[in-house]
Amino acid sequence: MTDLALAIDLGGTKVESALVAADGTLVDGSRHRRPTGSASSAEQLAAAVTECVTATLAARAPGDTLLGAGIGSAGPIAGTSGNVSPLNLPAWRDYPLGGLVEQLVPGIPVTLRMDGICITLAEVWKGAAQGETNVMGMIVSTGVGGGLMLGGRIIAGPTGNAGHIGHVAVSGFDDECACGARGCLEGIASGPRSVRWATEQGWVGSTGEELSASARAGDTIALAAIERSATAVGRAIASASALVDLDIVAIGGGFSHVSEQYVPLVGRAVAEHSDFGFVTKTRVVASSLSGEGPLVGAAALVHLSELVP
Amino acid sequence: MTDLALAIDLGGTKVESALVAADGTLVDGSRHRRPTGSASSAEQLAAAVTECVTATLAARAPGDTLLGAGIGSAGPIAGTSGNVSPLNLPAWRDYPLGGLVEQLVPGIPVTLRMDGICITLAEVWKGAAQGETNVMGMIVSTGVGGGLMLGGRIIAGPTGNAGHIGHVAVSGFDDECACGARGCLEGIASGPRSVRWATEQGWVGSTGEELSASARAGDTIALAAIERSATAVGRAIASASALVDLDIVAIGGGFSHVSEQYVPLVGRAVAEHSDFGFVTKTRVVASSLSGEGPLVGAAALVHLSELVP
Repeated sequence: MTDLALAIDLGGTKVESALVAADGTLVDGSRHRRPTGSASSAEQLAAAVTECVTATLAARAPGDTLLGAGIGSAGPIAGTSGNVSPLNLPAWRDYPLGGLVEQLVPGIPVTLRMDGICITLAEVWKGAAQGETNVMGMIVSTGVGGGLMLGGRIIAGPTGNAGHIGHVAVSGFDDECACGARGCLEGIASGPRSVRWATEQGWVGSTGEELSASARAGDTIALAAIERSATAVGRAIASASALVDLDIVAIGGGFSHVSEQYVPLVGRAVAEHSDFGFVTKTRVVASSLSGEGPLVGAAALVHLSELVP
Repeated sequence: MTDLALAIDLGGTKVESALVAADGTLVDGSRHRRPTGSASSAEQLAAAVTECVTATLAARAPGDTLLGAGIGSAGPIAGTSGNVSPLNLPAWRDYPLGGLVEQLVPGIPVTLRMDGICITLAEVWKGAAQGETNVMGMIVSTGVGGGLMLGGRIIAGPTGNAGHIGHVAVSGFDDECACGARGCLEGIASGPRSVRWATEQGWVGSTGEELSASARAGDTIALAAIERSATAVGRAIASASALVDLDIVAIGGGFSHVSEQYVPLVGRAVAEHSDFGFVTKTRVVASSLSGEGPLVGAAALVHLSELVP
């Protein structure tokens, strides 16, 4: 007899789903994942979501109530329509992901928002930003995403795409980004771009895990690649704080774990950025959410619906 | 028998004040200005404000009611305390400008906010953003400033400094900024920096007015300086829209009039920025406020107090 949310997190490398109770805990055995990836066809992506959600729904116990489904999607998205165009999943452009999920849970309300909004809700609800009101939740992974709470209100924007910190420019860089612009944070600091930069400097390897291992072994190129990414993230946070005056930024995502020094390096870049106290005062902390954070955030679209714009 | 606001606009080159009626019109003969400037001492700045406000107050007619004083100040500011530290007026650091004005109008409530917030209020109230709810008002002048309305609410930030678009970074640039950072929009695109860049390319002149005249005469360096500034402004707007999903940006300020092509060039830079429709959809328009805009905005702190956070 538990009130549950079906939580779904769609990202560039995987889709995950789980059942999440009103206290933010995941139902044992309900968490599933399937790969996505930029090479997948539209049909393969839809099959991945369907299989993942179907496996999750099978974990329901008799008497459980499904209050709603919450979906956090990589951006861009199309307002509150449920349609998505994730930059790193080119097969889906204006794809009705919300509609697909509605078919899997007939009669149950489905809410889809940017993954960055979900992670921000999760940080405020259960993570490192509890009690805070001027917050950016961030993920540094295959992509770089985020979401904003300003003055205690989640900011979605008129098209639902507020929080795209990965496409805020970083001074001193001019790298091409997959979005078509140049110098975007994501095109500099993401895991894959950091790995690519390291290989261009002569490092041998192909994954963030290998980069992490090399850094632990003291490889100077790996350490430089990590510092380069963290510094770029810090500079983008400084721009964001200049624009919206943030108190705290909570950073999670796979690449943020590449080194124990990663988040402190981001914080140093913010603290040393300029003479403006309202910029340098922005605290940078590691997400205190586990790898469950994106699912907890998607569930917050259901369980904390009063905060969802 | 008119309800008036005392409106004060403090900028890097001048302070202005006027009496403003509840319909946003300035009282005839009440508008005064005094120079400020980065070389002024703290005492000279205080004298400029005092003289200016005193001259404005002398224009009151018998029976006029002074509802309050509204001050728009160049940033940074210190929350809602009335204290200011304008980057381009180094003699004032945490200076109690609000307190100074309180002494000039004893018993009258005084509200001080960033000038960018004021200009945004003015654009929504009387200018190019009437009826809009996701707005950035911008000034391109000695400095580059702005303010935000998101989801129909003015965003001030916990320290009052939200809207510092002039200190959002621009990719591809690494110029030193007076704030201590590198690649800030203001350090690239302001009037003085554009003039400086032109002289470094061999143009002869020293003011924005001269740059404007040279551009009208077809001088290629002057034209390039103007396009460089406008493109940088467009890129910063694109970053801002990636982060907060803006519908419209209204641009005013002296340097935005340097060429009839200036605002269209900014708009082109935004429209061509990336493949993200939620970024390129951002409309860039010229402020429809006259040079009275900053004063109308300062008056909005009094007459539209319900919108002021």
